[in-house]
Amino acid sequence: MIIDVHGHMSAPDAYYAWKASLLAARGSHGGKPPVISDDALIASYNAPHPSFGNISHLDHIDGAGIDLQLLSPRPFHAMHSERPTKIVEWFTAETNNLIHRATELFPGRFQGIAGIPQSPYLSVEQWLPELRRAVTELGFVGAMVNSDPFEGTEVPPAMGERYWYPLYEALCELDVPMLLHSAGCKFPSREPYSLHFIQEETVSVWSMIQANVFADFPDLKVVVAHGGGAIPYQMGRFLPSVVRTGVSYLDKLRNFHFDSCLYTQESLELLLKAVGTDRVLFGSEKPGTGSQIDPATGRWFDDIHLLIDDIEWLDDDRRADVLENNARALFRL
Amino acid sequence: MIIDVHGHMSAPDAYYAWKASLLAARGSHGGKPPVISDDALIASYNAPHPSFGNISHLDHIDGAGIDLQLLSPRPFHAMHSERPTKIVEWFTAETNNLIHRATELFPGRFQGIAGIPQSPYLSVEQWLPELRRAVTELGFVGAMVNSDPFEGTEVPPAMGERYWYPLYEALCELDVPMLLHSAGCKFPSREPYSLHFIQEETVSVWSMIQANVFADFPDLKVVVAHGGGAIPYQMGRFLPSVVRTGVSYLDKLRNFHFDSCLYTQESLELLLKAVGTDRVLFGSEKPGTGSQIDPATGRWFDDIHLLIDDIEWLDDDRRADVLENNARALFRL
Amino acid sequence: MIIDVHGHMSAPDAYYAWKASLLAARGSHGGKPPVISDDALIASYNAPHPSFGNISHLDHIDGAGIDLQLLSPRPFHAMHSERPTKIVEWFTAETNNLIHRATELFPGRFQGIAGIPQSPYLSVEQWLPELRRAVTELGFVGAMVNSDPFEGTEVPPAMGERYWYPLYEALCELDVPMLLHSAGCKFPSREPYSLHFIQEETVSVWSMIQANVFADFPDLKVVVAHGGGAIPYQMGRFLPSVVRTGVSYLDKLRNFHFDSCLYTQESLELLLKAVGTDRVLFGSEKPGTGSQIDPATGRWFDDIHLLIDDIEWLDDDRRADVLENNARALFRL
Amino acid sequence: MIIDVHGHMSAPDAYYAWKASLLAARGSHGGKPPVISDDALIASYNAPHPSFGNISHLDHIDGAGIDLQLLSPRPFHAMHSERPTKIVEWFTAETNNLIHRATELFPGRFQGIAGIPQSPYLSVEQWLPELRRAVTELGFVGAMVNSDPFEGTEVPPAMGERYWYPLYEALCELDVPMLLHSAGCKFPSREPYSLHFIQEETVSVWSMIQANVFADFPDLKVVVAHGGGAIPYQMGRFLPSVVRTGVSYLDKLRNFHFDSCLYTQESLELLLKAVGTDRVLFGSEKPGTGSQIDPATGRWFDDIHLLIDDIEWLDDDRRADVLENNARALFRL
Amino acid sequence: MIIDVHGHMSAPDAYYAWKASLLAARGSHGGKPPVISDDALIASYNAPHPSFGNISHLDHIDGAGIDLQLLSPRPFHAMHSERPTKIVEWFTAETNNLIHRATELFPGRFQGIAGIPQSPYLSVEQWLPELRRAVTELGFVGAMVNSDPFEGTEVPPAMGERYWYPLYEALCELDVPMLLHSAGCKFPSREPYSLHFIQEETVSVWSMIQANVFADFPDLKVVVAHGGGAIPYQMGRFLPSVVRTGVSYLDKLRNFHFDSCLYTQESLELLLKAVGTDRVLFGSEKPGTGSQIDPATGRWFDDIHLLIDDIEWLDDDRRADVLENNARALFRL
Amino acid sequence: MIIDVHGHMSAPDAYYAWKASLLAARGSHGGKPPVISDDALIASYNAPHPSFGNISHLDHIDGAGIDLQLLSPRPFHAMHSERPTKIVEWFTAETNNLIHRATELFPGRFQGIAGIPQSPYLSVEQWLPELRRAVTELGFVGAMVNSDPFEGTEVPPAMGERYWYPLYEALCELDVPMLLHSAGCKFPSREPYSLHFIQEETVSVWSMIQANVFADFPDLKVVVAHGGGAIPYQMGRFLPSVVRTGVSYLDKLRNFHFDSCLYTQESLELLLKAVGTDRVLFGSEKPGTGSQIDPATGRWFDDIHLLIDDIEWLDDDRRADVLENNARALFRL
Repeated sequence: MIIDVHGHMSAPDAYYAWKASLLAARGSHGGKPPVISDDALIASYNAPHPSFGNISHLDHIDGAGIDLQLLSPRPFHAMHSERPTKIVEWFTAETNNLIHRATELFPGRFQGIAGIPQSPYLSVEQWLPELRRAVTELGFVGAMVNSDPFEGTEVPPAMGERYWYPLYEALCELDVPMLLHSAGCKFPSREPYSLHFIQEETVSVWSMIQANVFADFPDLKVVVAHGGGAIPYQMGRFLPSVVRTGVSYLDKLRNFHFDSCLYTQESLELLLKAVGTDRVLFGSEKPGTGSQIDPATGRWFDDIHLLIDDIEWLDDDRRADVLENNARALFRL
Repeated sequence: MIIDVHGHMSAPDAYYAWKASLLAARGSHGGKPPVISDDALIASYNAPHPSFGNISHLDHIDGAGIDLQLLSPRPFHAMHSERPTKIVEWFTAETNNLIHRATELFPGRFQGIAGIPQSPYLSVEQWLPELRRAVTELGFVGAMVNSDPFEGTEVPPAMGERYWYPLYEALCELDVPMLLHSAGCKFPSREPYSLHFIQEETVSVWSMIQANVFADFPDLKVVVAHGGGAIPYQMGRFLPSVVRTGVSYLDKLRNFHFDSCLYTQESLELLLKAVGTDRVLFGSEKPGTGSQIDPATGRWFDDIHLLIDDIEWLDDDRRADVLENNARALFRL
Repeated sequence: MIIDVHGHMSAPDAYYAWKASLLAARGSHGGKPPVISDDALIASYNAPHPSFGNISHLDHIDGAGIDLQLLSPRPFHAMHSERPTKIVEWFTAETNNLIHRATELFPGRFQGIAGIPQSPYLSVEQWLPELRRAVTELGFVGAMVNSDPFEGTEVPPAMGERYWYPLYEALCELDVPMLLHSAGCKFPSREPYSLHFIQEETVSVWSMIQANVFADFPDLKVVVAHGGGAIPYQMGRFLPSVVRTGVSYLDKLRNFHFDSCLYTQESLELLLKAVGTDRVLFGSEKPGTGSQIDPATGRWFDDIHLLIDDIEWLDDDRRADVLENNARALFRL
Repeated sequence: MIIDVHGHMSAPDAYYAWKASLLAARGSHGGKPPVISDDALIASYNAPHPSFGNISHLDHIDGAGIDLQLLSPRPFHAMHSERPTKIVEWFTAETNNLIHRATELFPGRFQGIAGIPQSPYLSVEQWLPELRRAVTELGFVGAMVNSDPFEGTEVPPAMGERYWYPLYEALCELDVPMLLHSAGCKFPSREPYSLHFIQEETVSVWSMIQANVFADFPDLKVVVAHGGGAIPYQMGRFLPSVVRTGVSYLDKLRNFHFDSCLYTQESLELLLKAVGTDRVLFGSEKPGTGSQIDPATGRWFDDIHLLIDDIEWLDDDRRADVLENNARALFRL
Repeated sequence: MIIDVHGHMSAPDAYYAWKASLLAARGSHGGKPPVISDDALIASYNAPHPSFGNISHLDHIDGAGIDLQLLSPRPFHAMHSERPTKIVEWFTAETNNLIHRATELFPGRFQGIAGIPQSPYLSVEQWLPELRRAVTELGFVGAMVNSDPFEGTEVPPAMGERYWYPLYEALCELDVPMLLHSAGCKFPSREPYSLHFIQEETVSVWSMIQANVFADFPDLKVVVAHGGGAIPYQMGRFLPSVVRTGVSYLDKLRNFHFDSCLYTQESLELLLKAVGTDRVLFGSEKPGTGSQIDPATGRWFDDIHLLIDDIEWLDDDRRADVLENNARALFRL
Repeated sequence: MIIDVHGHMSAPDAYYAWKASLLAARGSHGGKPPVISDDALIASYNAPHPSFGNISHLDHIDGAGIDLQLLSPRPFHAMHSERPTKIVEWFTAETNNLIHRATELFPGRFQGIAGIPQSPYLSVEQWLPELRRAVTELGFVGAMVNSDPFEGTEVPPAMGERYWYPLYEALCELDVPMLLHSAGCKFPSREPYSLHFIQEETVSVWSMIQANVFADFPDLKVVVAHGGGAIPYQMGRFLPSVVRTGVSYLDKLRNFHFDSCLYTQESLELLLKAVGTDRVLFGSEKPGTGSQIDPATGRWFDDIHLLIDDIEWLDDDRRADVLENNARALFRL
């Protein structure tokens, strides 16, 4: 069985058209979402998508043998930095509602990872009611956290700073993991959102270790998306700190989990060796950035399960850990 | 026959969903618009719209006896101030394309008023190729001009300043009128876009008169939307300038045309008396802000033709001027 | 009898010269005002004024048959945004003192409308002692309120925001109306102060209705200057909200009073019809912007009483309401 | 005979009231100055002034035996940093006109030192037409230069920077000295204008020496007001530079002239010794800051001629140089 | 005996190299200072210094007959405005440690004047623990206070403002004088740090008098460095205030003490006459700015004791006051 | 034989103390560097360094069998963003001089990689004279380029933008490779300089590929430090672009070379497989971040040559390419 912790929702055009309208009217039309029928919502998972190789969301996950996918919002659409803040709140709530409806319309295929209305112009405490609603009322099993709510427009507080503590407290209290995955990136032409994801993961892991966040929140569960940004590859850079602190950097890294969302076998192997097979969760981001067929191999670039199959030194038990058991334990599935 | 100079395009959700994606990806997906079939485009004019009293665009204009409507972009969606500037350019070009296709799919019912990619981060000269394309290649008969390309985020150059001269030159050279109608308003919570329209029209007329723009551009044709903002009502405030300048303010005002987009008979009468029946063009903004049924009268609020019918002192010739002839002359229809 | 609710003080040059000095020394000379004798003060009301058609303040109001004029500070001189804040406080206090002396030197001719030291760099609470002094010690019957204390240099809080609540509370407690009339406009070359008045009135009425201020302050009395900016003319734009809110916009508008300071008969008629004759108070702004003789008619542009006389459909009772009774009731005169 | 190079104009209240109006209307009333009769202008020199010990301008200079006074604008009123820039230009031109009229109304008593419309938002070249007009048309013998046209709101270019070169070129070409004397100081509460004068003189002299301006303009004539700020007292601090540069700082200082506007004998003596008696020009600033009677001595604080008389080591020739000859030579009187 | 209240520490290159590293790494290397041996520290006082005439610190003070020197940090190195604030704290603490070690390694030759970690991004209260440590644990006899912790990058609160009161309270409680001496000046090219010292002293004395700080802190002891900036020379400018306030400015000035750090005899005489011989403390700044030999005289420019010797009107007792007794009393030496 | 392309200079404390002084005085002391004798310079390479495991620079490279090391400036000390710009120019020139002297004092052991005075407040053209001097006069074989001259204080132009073209032109003309290696990072507490290096390498490679820089500069040679940041590990993310562009991302990557500065075998293997053994150059950064002994293995963390030895699948020829031949070819050694 395969559990995919890194999947993003599908939705019909009406949802995105409504988003465009929220941004244009800046809230002066009120926050009422469009009526989206069950049929329309189901269709958005069954219709071929031109950006994702012209097959549907369900075809993608079926083709990869994914039995259960954790659905989170499409991150680059999160619009956390937009104003007024109420449009962020309205949009996030409706996003969670649509994910929740998908979990019910496709029983057993999906579980929800909540979006959070992370406006940098609200206090962190003001983000929490929607998080609580998603977990306690909608039954979501985790939450996606954006380390840069400014979406590139200002330097945000690093993830090791006390700014984030109310969120960490809530996650621990609700006992759900966070999927560390940033969102949009508005101005700096140097970093499109897809690169911003990687950069944010790198600074966030660094900062949480540096600030020793897990000393204050030993029960905090963190899944770093995209295989941890640059961290596993550049890990050697941090190893000498053992001389100064007496604690191995590898031990510190084991406070985190990482998804497998990397599209080359060598990188996957590096990740598994660097952090351990008990710290890696299968994540495909299907359908998404990698949903194109490699002309050289005929495989989808994001057929990560095939790459994992190809790793010869991975025995069945550890392969099962990565594909299923680690996620099941961490998310209590 | 009725010619309506103030109508805004309809479009299917796919167009707005694409816009949402442009804003989220900030151009990193490229500028390729979605494929919108003729059927889908036609349907967007024939489908009942929940925000506009649940009848369709065509039902609205048929019901009002509008024979020909000049279609411009939906102003609050113009997103002139968004970055990078190429997303403004891409979106404006596709917007004009969709208007053009509507004029062809509904022969005789529509003519195009062009959107202009008025990014404040481009030079005015850089706006002009799309304007020229719309007029010379797509056959548009006018252009919509936003006096506040910053959409409320900074103080823009007033319409009387030389900043705008390259645009005025192009409009004169192309010999098409401009419809003065601002677009979105992003930050100042004091002014939703709908109020921003009015305020911008007021300052723009004031500024163009003050700076004596028509001395430099005697052939410039300007239609001020929404009955001229506050100008006709507050005109008395400007009359004493005759003592200082020797020129009547009323004469200066007659350099402008005004649409009839006001929803009360008293205001329409004031407008007609203040600027003259030869300076008012029928404009309904249908379907739009006023597309609700007045519970007190059973009329649509934006049934402006009925209000004009109700003005007893208006004789048939002058009524025809307002409803048809003035537009025909100004736009050479 | 005619009561004019919209008149601005006269003063000798020494007062303005002192103001120039306050601004130049930025308070380093202290706040002691110049000695202005009763004779000098009286003379400032009796001397012909070159900017106002070369007749005097008293000649103006006598000529218009104004029996009682409510005197407020000259708004464009208010200098609310100047620093340090103490010079605003000094200047406002002396301004109120001079108005008070005028009410005593011309018994029965004037009543005072207080200036308020509305520095945006003070808290609203810090504005209130001078307001209280003017009402309780000097006997003023109202207060002039500037909705833009930044005078165009920043976006101020809208009049519907809680920022303004301490002021509304004080006005209700003192039981005096506010005359909504903005002041200077420093930087945006797009809006000279005279146009700024109009724009500010428009956004302020809109905001107070939108935010439902009168639900919190049912006893708040507001007189909107200059006939309400663009509101009565553009009222149609707001009427459809009845469908959404169930409350007629016209009913909401009746929470406000409006002065008659418009210089064309059509606009006056529109105002009277739109808001009702019981909501309009005679206001002339004499001597002021309109104090020039119309070469076409030989009338002063600001001879608003003549325009009111010319409205044929207004019967004597309602004309008396506008000219006297409404003011008498609202201001308890 | 005594020539006083540092006197500031007197003017009636109408002039300052007009200034207050320019600032309040920000130019929207146009730039026409008030009509000031010859009598009114003469009276402003003959009337006792409450801020200056209750005697008149003429009494002050008569009492001090001043035969000829060079009249410059009142610096703290210069308003160089105000916007729009045209109000600075209007005000400066009228200021020069009033000085010119005083020189004609009191033949032989006054000569003019020109104000310059030093708006930091104009280019330096744009300042020059008024300077040229004052010298060539009005016959002024010098110009007052403000080293901080921002009046404390931003850091201005130092006087040694090339920014100032167009002004230096014009002064050399017109062959008139500049009186280095700054103007207002708006925001920094740490520096009232009177202290700002001193600080600006200090940094200006330092900068011009540091940048070696006199190598580029050997004919530039500079009179530093108020005895040179801190420079003569702190001169020791700069003397060691001789080791590095090979040129004595004292020699560099002799490129400047200084006025005697210091109110203690010790400071005057220090100045005379530090820079030489051939580099000091009598300047009293009468009537001004020092125009109060010292209760301890019964003298006016600004009776600088008495302090100079008291300096025993100064022989008659050198005393005459300071009181008359140096000014006569430098200003070609 | 001579006590010099104005000497700055010497230190080996390792100390400055560490500072360079703190600035480059911005704290990411931690705050551990370099190991500096006693020999190295002693050598830094005994080695000839190329910037200071190629003789050593001890040779300088021995040559001038200075028996006891109060050692403070080198002000231009204080780096108060650098970030993160912890590097300011680390650097200041180590600076005080090195001064303390010098007082112990050269018994009887030095006493410590403490540096304070005056980061403008810390609260004033956060500066105080290090001040307390220096006085109570290290035995320092005074503290150096920088009136511009922003080092020229922003306008700081003036020394008369309540911002500074926690510092004044601590100084009074600890019963140690402050040496008013600013530090670096980063951006404004108009003011190198050496000139900044003078300017800051001028505005600080002015502000403390203006705000009447000594009324609130009658026991506050202040030594103004460099002879008080411009104050004694420009004192005449402030004398007329007696008329307004009834208190002699000279009396107000006597709340301060001044050091003698001026390199010309005339200035020293002016200082002594202006503030009184009981208010001047010998201060040489040796080795420092003045440590060059005057080619004209063969003397070191900073041989201030020779200048004092040359003042004929100073009798022995008063000379001893300046050279020793005043310091002994003020600092309780 | 081993050639190490990534070594940073050593220098005595006097050099860093001078840097501290440049920063404190902001150039007001002039730009004269300290006298550093050959002995002192040699000693700085031979003395044990406390931060680098207490052995010397030469011991480090000898111990690793490095025959020839390319010496570049210590990047975190580059201070490119400091002002005034002349201190950056002075410091960079002296830095290059010291590197040059080291190449001469240790014949055959070192070659120079030039620092460039990359002030963001100079034009790129103004950086080039020092680059040219280093290559043509000092014989340097490459140049270090910092992609973020603002050092974290602003968003710099991405390396794909035309801003950088004058530098690329000069490098091509001089025919020397650039070592892509950023410098300090001042404000964002989220990114210490060591992490900033990695982030900057990632965005720079991405940007140069995205903008197709090598189409314009086919001869540009780039060595990306630290194994390319996140690029090789996250390469999968970029592979799908082949579908859109028709060009393999792997082919694009081969326009770059990468150093081997990674401290784990798995990462080195990933790098070699991802980009090819002909694109990797041995680089150790010795002595530097990794110069600590791993308590688990007894090896120095930065003993990268041992890690390369341990890669079994690397045959001798390809190992020699990495250790020597690739560098020899690229740098023409």
